[in-house]
Amino acid sequence: MDFNKITIIGIGLIGSSLALALKKQGFSGKMTGVGRNQENLIKAKEMGIIDDYSTSHAEGVIDADLIVLASTVGQFEEIVKNIRDHIKKGAILTDVGSVKAGVIKKIRPLMPEGVSFVGGHPIAGKECSGIHAATADLFNGAKCIITPEEDTDNEALDKVIGVWKKTGAVTAIMSPEEHDLVFAAVSHLPHVVAYALVNAILDVDDNILRHGGRGLKDMTRIALSPTELWRDICSYNRDDILITLRKFSSSITHIINLFEEAEWDTLEKEFTRAKEARQGIEPA
Amino acid sequence: MDFNKITIIGIGLIGSSLALALKKQGFSGKMTGVGRNQENLIKAKEMGIIDDYSTSHAEGVIDADLIVLASTVGQFEEIVKNIRDHIKKGAILTDVGSVKAGVIKKIRPLMPEGVSFVGGHPIAGKECSGIHAATADLFNGAKCIITPEEDTDNEALDKVIGVWKKTGAVTAIMSPEEHDLVFAAVSHLPHVVAYALVNAILDVDDNILRHGGRGLKDMTRIALSPTELWRDICSYNRDDILITLRKFSSSITHIINLFEEAEWDTLEKEFTRAKEARQGIEPA
Repeated sequence: MDFNKITIIGIGLIGSSLALALKKQGFSGKMTGVGRNQENLIKAKEMGIIDDYSTSHAEGVIDADLIVLASTVGQFEEIVKNIRDHIKKGAILTDVGSVKAGVIKKIRPLMPEGVSFVGGHPIAGKECSGIHAATADLFNGAKCIITPEEDTDNEALDKVIGVWKKTGAVTAIMSPEEHDLVFAAVSHLPHVVAYALVNAILDVDDNILRHGGRGLKDMTRIALSPTELWRDICSYNRDDILITLRKFSSSITHIINLFEEAEWDTLEKEFTRAKEARQGIEPA
Repeated sequence: MDFNKITIIGIGLIGSSLALALKKQGFSGKMTGVGRNQENLIKAKEMGIIDDYSTSHAEGVIDADLIVLASTVGQFEEIVKNIRDHIKKGAILTDVGSVKAGVIKKIRPLMPEGVSFVGGHPIAGKECSGIHAATADLFNGAKCIITPEEDTDNEALDKVIGVWKKTGAVTAIMSPEEHDLVFAAVSHLPHVVAYALVNAILDVDDNILRHGGRGLKDMTRIALSPTELWRDICSYNRDDILITLRKFSSSITHIINLFEEAEWDTLEKEFTRAKEARQGIEPA
């Protein structure tokens, strides 16, 4: 990693874990953390996650060779507005956001001359958030999607891929648009469904959720995720999530019809289709 | 356990685990297994799960003091028809089915004089089925719902509760009707939703499921469950599952509307409602 200074904006689970992973892999330059919560930054410094911190976006990015946006995607536009006049020429800006096209559309017009942007999305996370959940191996073996556009600088692209490979992540390339539809389906939809499922059970009777077994707990674990983060993802990837929500709604309506018509053979075929596809993504 | 002979009909995960648990807790009488697949029964005997077996329902229950229906609920009616003239007077019939009222309605008119029926439902299971997944501690710490009716014999009820306590299960009493609505909401609905979610993702693009991370895997793990079992549960608990599916469908429609109207504050409130309720059933 030929960076002298890396600035990570947003010192939560992902930002902290990235800092720890890069330090573990030999990064010996300055790791600067930027965030709103000074207490959190002091703690992160004490824990050796960062070497230095600032509560000012503008101040934090001065002299950085690599800047990583690791806050929730809803804050990216404001952050880029704050830092654009302070980023040094030749620096690379990247992010870890779960939504790409909608965010890129907002920050691209703000990008200063001579600074390269390369989008990234590590597929890692836990329900528990914050620096205390951070580990150097969070990305080890995880996928990380890199989303270059047609005019993305090749050298910057290679460097960002190199950063993620250092963390042990397996990188894959997608266009921002492909990324957003794929993750609307396999990540955003399931999160929204998990929240809706819990609420539907509360609507049946608000005292019965406690009877749920391991199956229900596994299925609704992602409803423990930070709601602000998911609100932002929903608003930034609205159109793609709507496509998947409508498909899912049709799927549920179809199943309700099968129940009403007592079409048990057809219902079992639907179950078998799902089971066989799910078996294809083992390990369970 | 004052039983000389226990017959378990259906030597799968639940039936085998019950046999192992009772043997471990000191049952020293004869444990007979009954099933359709002789090879499976021979294997179960070799593994010490059962002492004896029969492929005939009628033959298997002769002299049994306790008979446990542990096949899929769709087979219960036929089994009771086959065994009714062969059960000894004073014997207790119980089951481990995930649906109660609809099944009881079918088997109750078939029950012979002098035989007591007590419904039971251990809330335990795995996606992997069969005798090789069986363990003596499957029920240890799990809930087991016992569903007596108004005229259930008290002594038989106490004995069935005693059997489950021996396995380490925590028993709770519900009416068959209460049980069925509660488990339609917290178990049957989530299973149906898991299958529908996988199918909706396939409908978006049948090549993207593999991009799913741990969240999707956790959420769709129950789609690996045996489809025949779930077909039976759906058909036997049709009305209650329909109630919950309609609530869930409304919940999804409401969310689609919030996306369409870009009502992000309201959406986040929905997420928060679900998250707080889900936090109430920790451990995660």
